[in-house]
Amino acid sequence: MAKRQGETAIILENDVRIVSFAAVVGPKEAEGPLSRYFDKKESDEMLGEKSFEKAESKFQQKAVDEAFKKGGFKRQDMDVIFAGDLLNQCIGSSYGLRDFDIPFVGLYGACSTMVLSLVSAALSIEGGWAKRAVAVTSSHFCSSERQFRFPLEYGGQRPPTAQWTVTGAGAAVVQEKVGKIKVKAAAIGKIVDFGITDMGNMGAAMAPAAWDTISAFLKSTNTQPSDYDLILTGDLGFTGSELLVQIAKKDNVDLSNHNDCGMMIFDREGQDVHSGGSGCGCCGSVLCSYVLQQMEQGNLKNILVCATGALMSTTSTQQGESIPSIAHLVHLSVE
Amino acid sequence: MAKRQGETAIILENDVRIVSFAAVVGPKEAEGPLSRYFDKKESDEMLGEKSFEKAESKFQQKAVDEAFKKGGFKRQDMDVIFAGDLLNQCIGSSYGLRDFDIPFVGLYGACSTMVLSLVSAALSIEGGWAKRAVAVTSSHFCSSERQFRFPLEYGGQRPPTAQWTVTGAGAAVVQEKVGKIKVKAAAIGKIVDFGITDMGNMGAAMAPAAWDTISAFLKSTNTQPSDYDLILTGDLGFTGSELLVQIAKKDNVDLSNHNDCGMMIFDREGQDVHSGGSGCGCCGSVLCSYVLQQMEQGNLKNILVCATGALMSTTSTQQGESIPSIAHLVHLSVE
Repeated sequence: MAKRQGETAIILENDVRIVSFAAVVGPKEAEGPLSRYFDKKESDEMLGEKSFEKAESKFQQKAVDEAFKKGGFKRQDMDVIFAGDLLNQCIGSSYGLRDFDIPFVGLYGACSTMVLSLVSAALSIEGGWAKRAVAVTSSHFCSSERQFRFPLEYGGQRPPTAQWTVTGAGAAVVQEKVGKIKVKAAAIGKIVDFGITDMGNMGAAMAPAAWDTISAFLKSTNTQPSDYDLILTGDLGFTGSELLVQIAKKDNVDLSNHNDCGMMIFDREGQDVHSGGSGCGCCGSVLCSYVLQQMEQGNLKNILVCATGALMSTTSTQQGESIPSIAHLVHLSVE
Repeated sequence: MAKRQGETAIILENDVRIVSFAAVVGPKEAEGPLSRYFDKKESDEMLGEKSFEKAESKFQQKAVDEAFKKGGFKRQDMDVIFAGDLLNQCIGSSYGLRDFDIPFVGLYGACSTMVLSLVSAALSIEGGWAKRAVAVTSSHFCSSERQFRFPLEYGGQRPPTAQWTVTGAGAAVVQEKVGKIKVKAAAIGKIVDFGITDMGNMGAAMAPAAWDTISAFLKSTNTQPSDYDLILTGDLGFTGSELLVQIAKKDNVDLSNHNDCGMMIFDREGQDVHSGGSGCGCCGSVLCSYVLQQMEQGNLKNILVCATGALMSTTSTQQGESIPSIAHLVHLSVE
């Protein structure tokens, strides 16, 4: 059984571990600095499908298939799958996973979904009602652009604070006692809204949510950033990450061991991505490749991963609403 | 700690109970046969807001406020809130709940959300990481019509199999040992897709999912429908409910003690709702009023509630996709 520590931290006591994980990405991600860490690099971002949405579903399906293959698992070895994505009604997940025949919990956490699904999966094991659980999420540049911004054909100009939605998916399988990486603790974030209304600056909207969750977790566990090898956020990008470090500094906390999946996945100068990567698939593909691989190899031993999500829709934005954000956190370690 | 029984059933062993619940509905629902059971009946379906979506958020907020009031709770008494709705990016929940300052898990289960959130909340208590948790969901006729179907002003004609989205919200608070109604068991559904493509006949798309989950649960627990006072589905409506009973019959199972929130909330003849009510708020408002009240009064002692959801979007439908569906189940009892 899990227990609470302080106001925020959820401590797992049952030796829940990440036993297998995989990331599948599109061609632009495959040209980025993390290229050699991805399990599958697709040269066709449509994956032979006729629509962006169907392609995204297939990325999610492939990430799960790959995680199963790497772990030697079959579909029937899984008790539950936690999944979500950015598309309206989360169709990336429901269509991508409908053939798996695994009990399915749909989540909506926007770009925080990789951590929300991983935490949910870990807690299902900890809670005794699943022996093995999957966490998966995806995003696709094309399906996101046309849903949230402009038709791709329009070729709208992007502000410098804009981020580039990652085409890709990440999946992780958790169970007790097998695997090197332990899920030690977690925190479920609160909705934070500082009144940001600029859809072209998600990093600024999400940074306060990241700090809200990270600072609450540090306080609850009585730890400091320097107790961890890395404090990784999901997709604040360059603008949002700078803000996060500044906000922490105001609270007299040094976040110099912070990095962000959105800053890691693309080459800022060479790939014309402005403020970096974003989307559920950003944290999904970076965590479930480079980061967890570094942990398995012992190069990272003790990390916090805090993925942020912006919870608006085009409708709420058109109605003049600000962007409520959220950040969920997981503490991973190897011994 | 929860445990599995058979392939599907999740058995809760920690005496998790529904301590407080509330339902808030709009004017049409207030004119229906369950009128006197609702906690709040709003005469203005806009609740003074300028958009349908903002109104829906407010319904959700009011349902939670009312459940807190009835239980004598404050926001800070809650460790986590599980919520979702039908709107793109679940803005009914994120805007409706952003001021609560409670750790927030966003779910997407379409119209299955009341049961998915209730099961998630119960498992968070059972799992030891929350002392008190909230489950809430909502729907709104106007926001659903314009998002999924036609502009309201268009006045499109509805086929006889079409259902009427409920304007309303239901909320329940769970914790250990307090309250009359116990959450005894649960089942997380699998995605089921029988190839139905008719957006005007959701009941037919969802009925196979309901039977998939109900039959799996009965088999896992070695029980029969007659062991329960009521087998309640969420919003299959008249068409879908008839189908469910037929499908069960083919498997030689008699579902004569079945009822459906979508059949209960409106007067079929007098309120021009064709195949009955639908939407997350349908199961939300009927369960969190009439049904749970009947349990508290001892008129119902042992029930299964199985809420179904159709996981398509307008995009997937326009792309010719069929409607994947899901059904989650909870077993409630009073002693």
